[in-house]
Amino acid sequence: MSPDVLIVLGSKSDVEVGKKAASLLKDFGVDHKMVIASAHRTPDHLRELIRNSDAKVFIAIAGLSAALPGTIAAYTTKPTIGVPVSGKVNLDSILSITQMPPGIPVAAVGLDRGENAALLAVQILSLNDESLAEQLQEHRKKLAEWVMEDNESLGE
Amino acid sequence: MSPDVLIVLGSKSDVEVGKKAASLLKDFGVDHKMVIASAHRTPDHLRELIRNSDAKVFIAIAGLSAALPGTIAAYTTKPTIGVPVSGKVNLDSILSITQMPPGIPVAAVGLDRGENAALLAVQILSLNDESLAEQLQEHRKKLAEWVMEDNESLGE
Amino acid sequence: MSPDVLIVLGSKSDVEVGKKAASLLKDFGVDHKMVIASAHRTPDHLRELIRNSDAKVFIAIAGLSAALPGTIAAYTTKPTIGVPVSGKVNLDSILSITQMPPGIPVAAVGLDRGENAALLAVQILSLNDESLAEQLQEHRKKLAEWVMEDNESLGE
Amino acid sequence: MSPDVLIVLGSKSDVEVGKKAASLLKDFGVDHKMVIASAHRTPDHLRELIRNSDAKVFIAIAGLSAALPGTIAAYTTKPTIGVPVSGKVNLDSILSITQMPPGIPVAAVGLDRGENAALLAVQILSLNDESLAEQLQEHRKKLAEWVMEDNESLGE
Amino acid sequence: MSPDVLIVLGSKSDVEVGKKAASLLKDFGVDHKMVIASAHRTPDHLRELIRNSDAKVFIAIAGLSAALPGTIAAYTTKPTIGVPVSGKVNLDSILSITQMPPGIPVAAVGLDRGENAALLAVQILSLNDESLAEQLQEHRKKLAEWVMEDNESLGE
Amino acid sequence: MSPDVLIVLGSKSDVEVGKKAASLLKDFGVDHKMVIASAHRTPDHLRELIRNSDAKVFIAIAGLSAALPGTIAAYTTKPTIGVPVSGKVNLDSILSITQMPPGIPVAAVGLDRGENAALLAVQILSLNDESLAEQLQEHRKKLAEWVMEDNESLGE
Amino acid sequence: MSPDVLIVLGSKSDVEVGKKAASLLKDFGVDHKMVIASAHRTPDHLRELIRNSDAKVFIAIAGLSAALPGTIAAYTTKPTIGVPVSGKVNLDSILSITQMPPGIPVAAVGLDRGENAALLAVQILSLNDESLAEQLQEHRKKLAEWVMEDNESLGE
Amino acid sequence: MSPDVLIVLGSKSDVEVGKKAASLLKDFGVDHKMVIASAHRTPDHLRELIRNSDAKVFIAIAGLSAALPGTIAAYTTKPTIGVPVSGKVNLDSILSITQMPPGIPVAAVGLDRGENAALLAVQILSLNDESLAEQLQEHRKKLAEWVMEDNESLGE
Repeated sequence: MSPDVLIVLGSKSDVEVGKKAASLLKDFGVDHKMVIASAHRTPDHLRELIRNSDAKVFIAIAGLSAALPGTIAAYTTKPTIGVPVSGKVNLDSILSITQMPPGIPVAAVGLDRGENAALLAVQILSLNDESLAEQLQEHRKKLAEWVMEDNESLGE
Repeated sequence: MSPDVLIVLGSKSDVEVGKKAASLLKDFGVDHKMVIASAHRTPDHLRELIRNSDAKVFIAIAGLSAALPGTIAAYTTKPTIGVPVSGKVNLDSILSITQMPPGIPVAAVGLDRGENAALLAVQILSLNDESLAEQLQEHRKKLAEWVMEDNESLGE
Repeated sequence: MSPDVLIVLGSKSDVEVGKKAASLLKDFGVDHKMVIASAHRTPDHLRELIRNSDAKVFIAIAGLSAALPGTIAAYTTKPTIGVPVSGKVNLDSILSITQMPPGIPVAAVGLDRGENAALLAVQILSLNDESLAEQLQEHRKKLAEWVMEDNESLGE
Repeated sequence: MSPDVLIVLGSKSDVEVGKKAASLLKDFGVDHKMVIASAHRTPDHLRELIRNSDAKVFIAIAGLSAALPGTIAAYTTKPTIGVPVSGKVNLDSILSITQMPPGIPVAAVGLDRGENAALLAVQILSLNDESLAEQLQEHRKKLAEWVMEDNESLGE
Repeated sequence: MSPDVLIVLGSKSDVEVGKKAASLLKDFGVDHKMVIASAHRTPDHLRELIRNSDAKVFIAIAGLSAALPGTIAAYTTKPTIGVPVSGKVNLDSILSITQMPPGIPVAAVGLDRGENAALLAVQILSLNDESLAEQLQEHRKKLAEWVMEDNESLGE
Repeated sequence: MSPDVLIVLGSKSDVEVGKKAASLLKDFGVDHKMVIASAHRTPDHLRELIRNSDAKVFIAIAGLSAALPGTIAAYTTKPTIGVPVSGKVNLDSILSITQMPPGIPVAAVGLDRGENAALLAVQILSLNDESLAEQLQEHRKKLAEWVMEDNESLGE
Repeated sequence: MSPDVLIVLGSKSDVEVGKKAASLLKDFGVDHKMVIASAHRTPDHLRELIRNSDAKVFIAIAGLSAALPGTIAAYTTKPTIGVPVSGKVNLDSILSITQMPPGIPVAAVGLDRGENAALLAVQILSLNDESLAEQLQEHRKKLAEWVMEDNESLGE
Repeated sequence: MSPDVLIVLGSKSDVEVGKKAASLLKDFGVDHKMVIASAHRTPDHLRELIRNSDAKVFIAIAGLSAALPGTIAAYTTKPTIGVPVSGKVNLDSILSITQMPPGIPVAAVGLDRGENAALLAVQILSLNDESLAEQLQEHRKKLAEWVMEDNESLGE
């Protein structure tokens, strides 16, 4: 059975960004799986993977000319979140993921922002899951508390 | 009563991009509303608007130093979609919307891509709405058919 | 039967750049065909098209987050030439086509440079076609002559 | 009682740039305070903080999609100085802070230039404080002397 | 006698941006003057102008390699506001004005944002002028009202 | 006798990128040679080298204002592949190699992508070499297998 | 006999920028000539032209991947001035001309700045020509006077 | 007595780039001097320095918003060479130095290219110095020989 969120890495080198996403989904108790599938090196495998998946949300993580999120979005009408991975240029992955043509949206988050991709996935799933919605509220409160704690630690 | 999707424009000059979003939502029969509220000129109004809204998805459309999507995302845990609007620099709105800090995700779409923001909203809502999910499948088929028709018209 | 060169446009809006390529191939008497197929809107059609093509060289022309050349390159081991199409950002299509990952090369030419994509295709085909090789030599001479004629026309 | 200058950091990671500002203000004997408050993670706290502050000048220090300076500027009509913090992209924070819409100005200084933000604050305050104005003259002379000393140390 | 705000244009071609600043200052009743003085073509004139001016705030408006704001800032310890003017590159004037070295701050506003430079000047002057401070509050309210009126006019 | 592929480095500092190309060509059993020849420091040597070479494909590897690929392309009608080398700016070499004028194409690959330049050369040569064509198919399969193995190693 | 300054255009489309240079040289009475010669389309002609020229200064004007100035600099040890010509990207010609490797300098001026290239040539020639040096002083004075006249015309 | 070439550093942190220039001038036996003088921190000193200098060529080395070369060019009609120094943004110093307004040229060389600035100065001085002209020819030959030696050392 498919997980609710499928995290797809374009290559093994994207794994650290992927772990940020997986870790947050785990914290929220969201059923998820992380796999590697390349839009360029394993196009047929990627196609089968997405077409046969029952995931509700896809998170695609890739660097350089990051075609992965767009390719996944082309194979599904489920929401696809794209995470650009940093490298020597950075504008390459950011623009490759953001500048999708009309008709096939990708939800781009920031450079290396695996955790934000996961949070966005949780936000989406929480529209139909009261418990998740409450956890999000809690998480948001904690974020604020952490800021206030950091504030305390500034001393002065 | 709140609409399912609230489209927020940063200023009146963003209205053409907003109409692309509204038009697509109308085609899908999704309950929506389009308003102007500025993160910089009407911060209190924006805060009240978002805090009191029952919208399931927010679409924020803004140019320049486009703080609107991030500000909305700060006031809600519902999914927020950001649309950068083109101007003299373009990298300003793209990067302002994409490069959100950890904890507060915005789902960025491409420059002036109001229709993609709306489609992403429909994809999100369709996770819990069979009829929308079917319409998305139909829409995707039509996109492909239009490509094939364009193909025919190339002649040769 | 497949043409020697298949020109693939990502959308109808790329047709002017495509015509530059087609026109040059016609001048060289190279068997070619121009079609529209989108990596994002018609992924299955594109896959079938490339997998079943006997073309020796592919020319892929696309703007924005231009995944088309890379997707074609993923489906074939024939040389794939990518042409970025200009728009509001330009660095998006240039970097999307240039910055391919290891293992799946795309031969990028300049922004809107359909004619150069075609010339590169002719150069490739001429490795095994004496007549084309001679035509290339003639074309190169003509380029130089045109420069000299422009030079004359400067007067002074 | 409020300090004359309130330094607001978008997150704890901005503290080194903040210290440059605080240190210079201390040298000039300007009453100041440094706090952390996030436009995205603690929007209500930030709003209260700014609305209730009697500070004459605000210095906002933030990286990435740096909405902090603009958000502060939206809550006050006091001068707001924004300091972009360096990261993997840099143009993100520079453009997010510089490209404010008409009506809500932010005074942007250079990347990581906390000390210049503080100097600008001192320049502003010195319009109504003879002692500060004189200190600024002294400081300017010292800057020149340091250049001349560096010059000496070049030897040759 | 010097005006309170001196607007300096780098060349006659910057006059439209300058008028935006002058017009706003006039609305606020702030004593001001607009002149042309080039850091590169009239360096001595510029030096005399700034050194002999009793202006409280300087607004420097320039395009390309916009050295004007920094040069003015070098001749005065009064607050200097820099306005980058748009052209074929845009990042040239934005970065030339923003990226000042430590010790000599310039307060950069957005591309062609003459009105924001003037508002920033008013904010600075209002620290010591109750009437201006009140006018700023009124202006801010009007900005919000205009947004609300635009909102009305959206209809729907 | 000339090799099939001539790899030209703009300077000794490009050798690591060159070795990636040479290593891949060796794996495919393609006859090749790697030399240093500078468009700027040894223009006559470069001209003689290219004019007298019987190589079927040229790979030019250079950083900064990378004129090498274009200069080689100007001296031959054989396919020329350009590899931009990374440095402090990166957009310099990418744009210098990509943005060739009409009439003289260069096939640009990604930053530091020596291996992709070599693969592109193999793709070109394989149009007329069944054995190479088969090796490319094998190589492509191996790429996919490596992805699948990386996938396994993700565990979870 | 060679002129003192040889203006070389990369293509006929650069002629407007070339005329700015020629016109200024004419005003100064400097012996000059303007020709078209392409680094990519007429490499041999360009080489002969530069090698056989007795010009004291070369001005090379080119757009896109502007190899012309660097190629000329490679063929002569006389000062070579490069003028990037504007197009769809602009950073391409600016960086192609500026980022020359060690050993072969090009003196880059601004985008489309033919007149500045000519002025730089006059400055160089005037080191050994009293009359030119005086004319430069006069020209500089006129520049300042024009600024002052523009200043007058601001009225107010 | 003034040296033939005056190297001006914007700050002590530019000294490594300055040494590259000084070292090359020493090799050519050109009389030179290196000083620090800031356009922003010591504007009067800089003005006196340039106005009273009999140097034939100025080399100005600066990072960030690099106004130094343009300011020197404003005070002299002698050729001024500008060297952008690398930092966190790089496009700031490159564009600040390249994009000078009409009438006041700066000869920009590449990022951190002190040696090229010196070579350009030598090229300029050699127009009137046979011995320098010959040394340049020798230097150019050595550059080529070094390339050939590097070539040998590739072995293979």
